[in-house]
Amino acid sequence: MKIENIDLTNYPGSEKVYMSGKIYPDLKVGMRRVKLTPTVKMAGNEKIVRENAPVYIYDTSGVYTDPDYKIDINEGIPRLREKWISSRDDLEQLPEITSQYGRMREADKSLDEVRFSRRYAPRQARPGCEITQMALARRGVITPEMEYVAIRENMNNEALGIQSRITPEFVRDEIADGRAVLPANINHPEAEPMIIGRNFLVKLNTNIGNSALSSGIEEEVNKAVWSCYWGGDTLMDLSTGDHIHETREWIIRNCPVPMGTVPVYQALEKVNGSVKDLTWEIYRDTLIEQAEQGVDYFTIHAGALRAHADMIQERMTGIVSRGGSIMTQWAVIHDSENFLYTHFEEICEILARYDVAVSLGDGLRPGSIHDANDRAQFLELDVLGELTEIAWKHNVQVLIEGPGHVPMNKVRENMERQLDKCHEAPFYTLGPLTTDIAPGYDHITSAIGAAQIAWYGTAMICYVTPKEHLALPNLEDVRNGVITYKIAAHAADLAKGFPGAQVRDDAMSRARYDFRWKDQFNLSLDPARARQYYVESHKDDDRFCTMCGPNFCAMRISQAVADDCVK
Amino acid sequence: MKIENIDLTNYPGSEKVYMSGKIYPDLKVGMRRVKLTPTVKMAGNEKIVRENAPVYIYDTSGVYTDPDYKIDINEGIPRLREKWISSRDDLEQLPEITSQYGRMREADKSLDEVRFSRRYAPRQARPGCEITQMALARRGVITPEMEYVAIRENMNNEALGIQSRITPEFVRDEIADGRAVLPANINHPEAEPMIIGRNFLVKLNTNIGNSALSSGIEEEVNKAVWSCYWGGDTLMDLSTGDHIHETREWIIRNCPVPMGTVPVYQALEKVNGSVKDLTWEIYRDTLIEQAEQGVDYFTIHAGALRAHADMIQERMTGIVSRGGSIMTQWAVIHDSENFLYTHFEEICEILARYDVAVSLGDGLRPGSIHDANDRAQFLELDVLGELTEIAWKHNVQVLIEGPGHVPMNKVRENMERQLDKCHEAPFYTLGPLTTDIAPGYDHITSAIGAAQIAWYGTAMICYVTPKEHLALPNLEDVRNGVITYKIAAHAADLAKGFPGAQVRDDAMSRARYDFRWKDQFNLSLDPARARQYYVESHKDDDRFCTMCGPNFCAMRISQAVADDCVK
Repeated sequence: MKIENIDLTNYPGSEKVYMSGKIYPDLKVGMRRVKLTPTVKMAGNEKIVRENAPVYIYDTSGVYTDPDYKIDINEGIPRLREKWISSRDDLEQLPEITSQYGRMREADKSLDEVRFSRRYAPRQARPGCEITQMALARRGVITPEMEYVAIRENMNNEALGIQSRITPEFVRDEIADGRAVLPANINHPEAEPMIIGRNFLVKLNTNIGNSALSSGIEEEVNKAVWSCYWGGDTLMDLSTGDHIHETREWIIRNCPVPMGTVPVYQALEKVNGSVKDLTWEIYRDTLIEQAEQGVDYFTIHAGALRAHADMIQERMTGIVSRGGSIMTQWAVIHDSENFLYTHFEEICEILARYDVAVSLGDGLRPGSIHDANDRAQFLELDVLGELTEIAWKHNVQVLIEGPGHVPMNKVRENMERQLDKCHEAPFYTLGPLTTDIAPGYDHITSAIGAAQIAWYGTAMICYVTPKEHLALPNLEDVRNGVITYKIAAHAADLAKGFPGAQVRDDAMSRARYDFRWKDQFNLSLDPARARQYYVESHKDDDRFCTMCGPNFCAMRISQAVADDCVK
Repeated sequence: MKIENIDLTNYPGSEKVYMSGKIYPDLKVGMRRVKLTPTVKMAGNEKIVRENAPVYIYDTSGVYTDPDYKIDINEGIPRLREKWISSRDDLEQLPEITSQYGRMREADKSLDEVRFSRRYAPRQARPGCEITQMALARRGVITPEMEYVAIRENMNNEALGIQSRITPEFVRDEIADGRAVLPANINHPEAEPMIIGRNFLVKLNTNIGNSALSSGIEEEVNKAVWSCYWGGDTLMDLSTGDHIHETREWIIRNCPVPMGTVPVYQALEKVNGSVKDLTWEIYRDTLIEQAEQGVDYFTIHAGALRAHADMIQERMTGIVSRGGSIMTQWAVIHDSENFLYTHFEEICEILARYDVAVSLGDGLRPGSIHDANDRAQFLELDVLGELTEIAWKHNVQVLIEGPGHVPMNKVRENMERQLDKCHEAPFYTLGPLTTDIAPGYDHITSAIGAAQIAWYGTAMICYVTPKEHLALPNLEDVRNGVITYKIAAHAADLAKGFPGAQVRDDAMSRARYDFRWKDQFNLSLDPARARQYYVESHKDDDRFCTMCGPNFCAMRISQAVADDCVK
């Protein structure tokens, strides 16, 4: 099997540049620098030219937009963190993979056709070593990953003299306190470090993955790359169909951002979809299998307890989380407690060996406006708070997942309770969708809620595509979902007054006022689309656009007024 | 000239029904009734069938979705309010149109080719009569228009026993107090009554109109009808190109919703785009011309004063309102006060004769995040508050226009100041856009702000299409803009706890839980798109969808759990 490289054009007017570190001078933190054209004005007969400083843009696209790098999906991308990881003395290389299932897949010759060809031996913590970024932070260590994210979060600030409290030390302290997560499985060295916490830029996650009814490996890898290209900060592979193990390997080896999964999906596939037959042993083997492949965070629905099952009677739409419904059904069938809850300490021990973060799933998130903020939802949140403390005891980094469908007036309560009950662990929400009545447009119903909750303090928002409730997203849906969520995240960064967030808006607004159209396109979240819409209707004179026509351009008139007032 | 009728499919699963009044039994208030299929469950071998009540949907599409009516754009739509208007004793029929310019256009044979063929003699108030809905409300009269909107705002509530304070008396009192506007030019009897006020459903306005560079009459009429079809509550014709007078006539005669304009655009065309040559007399004649055609509300930039011009130096993007920039430039060139301000009493006298509402334009609205909530913006708002009191003295209904580009953290201040300074006159905002960096997606950047400000109390939100900042919208952009703003408006209605707003969400959510796919489509804001996305990926079994596949459908598992718990 050979996968064609997805066709990506580099961002126009942009160059890929790298900043180095101070603590770690050999860091190469990738970003895009957008060069701007000068402002040109006439003052009488004199031409006044004012240069415009370039704008640095946070860039999740990794080597895919580096013109010096030749992409080959079949080889995987460079292992950026390999040197840092291999120089650590708290890790050990394993002779072979640990998971029984993983070994079985490796041995199966019939899978050679769909397998990613290169193999890397997994690493784990040396016995007795506490190796997670959280453990290191608590010991006062500033890792290369920490300096990397400090640079990334500040890219325009030093040049512009903007004050920011985000230093490598601050990054370390936020991780140590559990207020931020730096997902960094030691077996995913391809991922560029990034950080999730409410004192940092708001991040967005994208979901991809096939189901039994759709999509092959190539399509999913393409979606993954495409998601990073447009700005996805993390990526969840939610595959439930064939070749989950092999699909994941292709994605991870080509993924420049942290990747998450919901391990129970694969565990259920291993028992042919029969919830009754799920066991802790199968689940445990799946955790190890995936951790050694390099998954950076696991969604684990350990908070959906047996006792909550009865409460769903009160609901309009029951349980809409797949993982939550599986674990609840398992608990009801066996009349036992959710095994993810009862085995949570052991889960944390496994995660700690690889530095996999846990994303505590909200199995009882509301699936309708009617069910928002109900008893079941909030009781589960209380449990997630207990589990957070257990995970932290093991130095496992924690995210808390949140709803769902919530009307705007009930959004704030979600945030406040989460901060309170879950000890300020970063909140990671799906939307929330602020109405139920717009299938086909749920990227928008949810962006309204996502922007709001991110402003209140949610650290990462999980995108929703136009196909939500209807079908799996295709490439164009992924693009629309990512851009929509970039908007929500950025609107929240502005509202929070995040240092430097407004630099790009100001550059765009100056470009508008100057009629520097190319700069406007190049500064856009989606330069290709902005340019396309303009070009389709553009005529000769670019001192006005088709919206207003020559006599009605407010900005041109406004400039004339400003000139008159100065005289 | 003959215009082809735009191709509209009726909404699937929907019938057009009419409710009658109690005070005025011959009222026929149009709405859509969506019939739902029953819920079918198996309890052992027994099939349990539960009927689902139909859902009534607020409908702005007028006769265009009445299968009993044969549409002909060349004839115009029925004059719904004609009987009410002609029976009034406070109005008089004019022998001919008053405007000099209007008469000239009428007399110009060369325009016959582009002219709407039917003519109606205009009406105005009889001398000494105060005829506006506000004047009538203040005298204690409940007009047919008032009962009409009371029925419209409550359509599901009586059948479902939902308490609502919206009665015809309440409508009257809100209009009398200036907290709500019922736009109802006596020369636009085609418009179905609707109400704009923060104690009613949030409304949305769409902007259409050609510019010198684009679009003909047929295209604009099609956009108008299309806007109403998808859910636009009012419509502004912002044409600045050729045949403004004739285009407007076509639109008004075919428009089932109130229509607004910015008269200074046409006035400026009359002086060939030369701001310097604008005069009060030309403007005055334009007001009368348009009022007699039936324009329901005028945006008038009377608050942008000469003194404000100097403040735009402090701004990043100067003045971005076309009307604001025109009036400011006029004031600077002539070194005089804005003539809309100095003639405001006279303007109100004209408006009162036809019951045209004034929408006080925010000529100094911020055009960038940087300029949000600045001194110029808020000083103008203070002036709009003064003008509100003058208009109310003349019984002229008032809307206040608002920004613009505003980050989320500065949105609330806009609403609070507006309520305070403008005496609770309904606020009508463009977005606001919550970031500057997403051209091509500004329907979304602005829906985030629009939903928020509508929740805080804005009565009507003006849509933004994906083409904002780039080009004029085409039909598909109008559709996307309208649906996006329906979402924002509805999200706000839910957040405000508007009586009955959640009926449609609940029906949708029940349909989801029951896998009643057709009901889901039919209840959607955009049934065609929801269905299309589903059908493209749909396979045989409709008890799950492609998102989760057969083993992972949370709702199906959840139903099984619920069944188990009951046993």
